[in-house]
Amino acid sequence: MRESVRDRLLAGYDGTADRDGVSGKRLAERLATLALIGETEDGGVNRPGFSAEEKRAKEQVMEWMREAGLDVRMDGAGNVIGRLDGKSDGPAFAAGSHVDSVPNGGNFDGPLGVLSALEVVEAWKETGYEPPVPVEVIIFSEEEGSRFGAGIMGSQAMTGDMGHEALSVLSDSEGNSFEEVISAYGTTVDEFLGAARDLKEIGFYAEIHIEQGKLLEQAGLPAGIVKGIAGPAWLNVVFRGTAGHAGNTPMIGRRDPLVAAGRFLHEVSSLPAQFSDTAVATVGKLNVSPNGANVIPEEVALTVDIRDLDKTARDGLVEKVRETAKRCAVEGGVEVSLDLASSIDPVPVPDEVREELGQVFEEAGIRPMELMSGAGHDAMILGGHVPMAMIFVKSIEGISHNPAEWSDLGDCITAVHLLKQFAEQRMVKMAAHEG
Amino acid sequence: MRESVRDRLLAGYDGTADRDGVSGKRLAERLATLALIGETEDGGVNRPGFSAEEKRAKEQVMEWMREAGLDVRMDGAGNVIGRLDGKSDGPAFAAGSHVDSVPNGGNFDGPLGVLSALEVVEAWKETGYEPPVPVEVIIFSEEEGSRFGAGIMGSQAMTGDMGHEALSVLSDSEGNSFEEVISAYGTTVDEFLGAARDLKEIGFYAEIHIEQGKLLEQAGLPAGIVKGIAGPAWLNVVFRGTAGHAGNTPMIGRRDPLVAAGRFLHEVSSLPAQFSDTAVATVGKLNVSPNGANVIPEEVALTVDIRDLDKTARDGLVEKVRETAKRCAVEGGVEVSLDLASSIDPVPVPDEVREELGQVFEEAGIRPMELMSGAGHDAMILGGHVPMAMIFVKSIEGISHNPAEWSDLGDCITAVHLLKQFAEQRMVKMAAHEG
Repeated sequence: MRESVRDRLLAGYDGTADRDGVSGKRLAERLATLALIGETEDGGVNRPGFSAEEKRAKEQVMEWMREAGLDVRMDGAGNVIGRLDGKSDGPAFAAGSHVDSVPNGGNFDGPLGVLSALEVVEAWKETGYEPPVPVEVIIFSEEEGSRFGAGIMGSQAMTGDMGHEALSVLSDSEGNSFEEVISAYGTTVDEFLGAARDLKEIGFYAEIHIEQGKLLEQAGLPAGIVKGIAGPAWLNVVFRGTAGHAGNTPMIGRRDPLVAAGRFLHEVSSLPAQFSDTAVATVGKLNVSPNGANVIPEEVALTVDIRDLDKTARDGLVEKVRETAKRCAVEGGVEVSLDLASSIDPVPVPDEVREELGQVFEEAGIRPMELMSGAGHDAMILGGHVPMAMIFVKSIEGISHNPAEWSDLGDCITAVHLLKQFAEQRMVKMAAHEG
Repeated sequence: MRESVRDRLLAGYDGTADRDGVSGKRLAERLATLALIGETEDGGVNRPGFSAEEKRAKEQVMEWMREAGLDVRMDGAGNVIGRLDGKSDGPAFAAGSHVDSVPNGGNFDGPLGVLSALEVVEAWKETGYEPPVPVEVIIFSEEEGSRFGAGIMGSQAMTGDMGHEALSVLSDSEGNSFEEVISAYGTTVDEFLGAARDLKEIGFYAEIHIEQGKLLEQAGLPAGIVKGIAGPAWLNVVFRGTAGHAGNTPMIGRRDPLVAAGRFLHEVSSLPAQFSDTAVATVGKLNVSPNGANVIPEEVALTVDIRDLDKTARDGLVEKVRETAKRCAVEGGVEVSLDLASSIDPVPVPDEVREELGQVFEEAGIRPMELMSGAGHDAMILGGHVPMAMIFVKSIEGISHNPAEWSDLGDCITAVHLLKQFAEQRMVKMAAHEG
């Protein structure tokens, strides 16, 4: 069954991009090997953060890293760091991603970023290229958040953005505390927090990731340049009315929170366009209480996920959504409570980096299309501390977090070349800056 | 906490209606005992159909039935039948209700009907009264429909109104099939269907139930006479769109089923007024899938509960709701499927029975106010086969399906006397008819 990941990748690849030490076959085989770890019936993978499967996937990549000549270590947060010395010392050029997955997730979200960074190192090894500064290939732990409902954990541990208190409240769906899970994984909370590095050791972070959207496909481009990551704001909205019997309560005088919520759901969908072309607002989670077919609901609780690259527009949209909820509640005769559960600021990619990456794209004959990342990534966390770049690879039909997630091998290899070229140019500047 | 149900009932009762063997204290203590089974933090109960809690409540009542001298059996549908022989054989005078509840429901809807029928038998036992025909006190299984979205199951099993096919498509919210649930309950699908009785065994069915509305309270009356039951139509509506990442999917081009459902929810609330003053349409149950805060939903499944006293108006409203769902789907760019899960015609109470009951009310000094029942009841199913009567008891503020549901003990005891008197008169006629 899983052999088909390799076969399908190679069947769609003509091999013409195999140059300068980069090998489509090697990347395909490695993607297919990871696809076997935690494989599901649907052809997807289950590799929750801090699971045995995630660990096995890391160990497999660690083996490949060693074969490629990297010094490999795992930190107290389970992050894997494969390091290649440069001609000079100083801050490293780092690149990577994660190997954990959402439940029954796809085979590209995460692994592609790790394996394409490793493929760049493989190419350098084959061509005898020696990087001017140290290089690191990193696998971050638990990016997806499917274990504890709190993702990007490994990168936050490495940057020191995660504290003891945040960890102490976590438990997984089976009721295991973070401490218990991490202990079974072979580390401790103290060691986890001890993964925080002196970030002067990292001079730059780059990540290849599938787009998880359709814009590159629509534009007919293999890859694109991320101009920034839109941090999400999560607004919890609870409409409260009066429960009653669906048959014996006349329509007049009802206080039905689901009628008010219905109006709100419909109106929210038209608000983002008032702020920007990139703003989005989504209600993905909604729970009705008591949720009986013949009971007028008492309470409807929902979460609005609001994102934009521009913080001012995003915050304006949050405010507009708040006002809309209040108006829908008043007009529906129900109560409403609003709680901004989380709000992560957008992380822009520095202009200078985007321009530099744009030149690399143009030299490769690819129009440098810029895209917003609506999803959070490890690069969002690293980007809060060091300059960061992200390259998106075309996703077929934009499907992700799903076994049907797919990217063509030719597009993946194109991204490997773009990262390799960009890294070589950027490292020259980094070395000059150090010297 | 629960002791307060007993205390509160007795605190509002002066005891003057304790006569002819009827005991307010006994009824209060029994209502309070059932209130402990599946009790919730809010002072309500969770006793879904075919749950361990429903079963425990039945077993408790079976114990009381045996103490009262009834022959007790549970049929294959889980219906409990407590039988008292009459002076002559022939069709029985049956009375009862159910002990299952909606999620976090109240302490009177169902239990009052069962326990007041039992209280009539207790009174006869104390006074040495021997009924002229057999008497049955019945607890019907799963009346509320909170388990499978299909209620009045026990009564339909007993009357033979439920077939194999209807059962085979049922599953609860945890994905358990009807067969699995009923098996855990200790019975089988064949035994369930085998509960169908020769309805010649039942000559009459009577049910005491709380009003679940405010009309008796507004009229200042302890009880009223049901003139008919407005059968509900349940329309299952499923909106289907395309799941996607909430951050990486632009607003334009989304196929979000929850946005379409929102518009539908809001519009449905204004449709009943176009048909009649009594028509109602309610969405009480709605489930979003996959229900993740950062995932555009793929599917929204909901049930519209539609009722009216007039069948033509009710059916017209069903059709209008269908059209509205289709239009909201088309305008929202999503798919919709519609399934009329159940549709029960309004059931009238025979004129002769209403007149007889009216005389009983007048003799007790109570104005015989007639009401329509907007809620379905087991009496609605039995009434399709045998003559039926229902007595409504005043509901405080009309609240039901809610922990705040309440009726004063004095009004409950008044209803017990009315049922007792009516049963004694009716049984004389039944015995004469047989003789």
